[in-house]
Amino acid sequence: MEKLVLHEDPISGNCYKIKLTAALLGLRMECRAYSVLHGETRTPQFLNFINPNGRIPVLQVGDRFLPESSAACFYLADGSRLIPDDRFDRADMLRWMFFEQYNHEPNVATLRFWLAFVGEDSLSELQKSLVPGKKIAGDAALKLMDDHLATRNWFVGESITLADIALYAYTHVAEEGGAFDLSFYPSISAWLARVAAEPGYVKM
Amino acid sequence: MEKLVLHEDPISGNCYKIKLTAALLGLRMECRAYSVLHGETRTPQFLNFINPNGRIPVLQVGDRFLPESSAACFYLADGSRLIPDDRFDRADMLRWMFFEQYNHEPNVATLRFWLAFVGEDSLSELQKSLVPGKKIAGDAALKLMDDHLATRNWFVGESITLADIALYAYTHVAEEGGAFDLSFYPSISAWLARVAAEPGYVKM
Repeated sequence: MEKLVLHEDPISGNCYKIKLTAALLGLRMECRAYSVLHGETRTPQFLNFINPNGRIPVLQVGDRFLPESSAACFYLADGSRLIPDDRFDRADMLRWMFFEQYNHEPNVATLRFWLAFVGEDSLSELQKSLVPGKKIAGDAALKLMDDHLATRNWFVGESITLADIALYAYTHVAEEGGAFDLSFYPSISAWLARVAAEPGYVKM
Repeated sequence: MEKLVLHEDPISGNCYKIKLTAALLGLRMECRAYSVLHGETRTPQFLNFINPNGRIPVLQVGDRFLPESSAACFYLADGSRLIPDDRFDRADMLRWMFFEQYNHEPNVATLRFWLAFVGEDSLSELQKSLVPGKKIAGDAALKLMDDHLATRNWFVGESITLADIALYAYTHVAEEGGAFDLSFYPSISAWLARVAAEPGYVKM
């Protein structure tokens, strides 16, 4: 595999997904840190050479750049045990990864960022007006995950896949900022412990 | 392949992605229609048997159910010419599909739904407050696409992939409701014509 460089912000769960995937697979990856809070992903240099979308993470593979955390995880894990061999299960893994980006991250991750890093007093009026809806939608996403995990150890199949890694990243820090209480979700809590017990696991 | 049934709403671009994928591959699929506007995806029957997330589309494969439009497209196209053989390109295709669900659909598709189907007068105060931000973010997504297409015919590689299908669905109807004007994006307009000229293409 060509040289891997992760352009990241260490406080971002989206970046952590890629680092956890690499760690579970024993892949080496150089990391370069940028601060989202200080606008370091919106500089002309970053927009021109790393990602025109102004977002991290971006996985650099040789001289090519791959934005979007879930796509980067897929690149690293392609052909490995973290992606199911079965055709339906492979698509079902992606189903949970798209669910994470659409239903989970914009609520669970955004509230953590707003409340634990930006600070409630620094939010705009528009952001403040969105907090109650994001709490409801985030709890709905966690409830759906908890129901799914009530009868199974992993989101898809019989072992850990990228679906678990993608959903683990922001779920295991969901309580930061105070918007969510994981004690309401016992099946999630048991699953978080299973992920953290995987050989090669690294902390955020 | 097992029998395919698409649980869908015909006004939804997310459902159309799956129908266009099936059409380009020559796959037969039964369709069952539900009205999102009339709450038909929130009935106990739908939540218990089709999708606990209360959303369409859902692709039924035999007796298994696969939510999330992009995952359903991946299932149908797995092993076909619509997914690149090259490892980086395959991940890069997913990169655009995640971009579509995170940066494009919540802005471009949501404004179309609110303005062309719900009606501006029927929006809640919170929804009305979100319209200006969604216009800016939707235009940013379209600009990024237009820049990318300025020097290439397709989003990834040298022929149509699921990335083009996913982005085509809501882009080609982006003007419905009046929030977006595609005449500002000439490279997008040329690409829309290329997609519509593909053998097997079906209209929404």
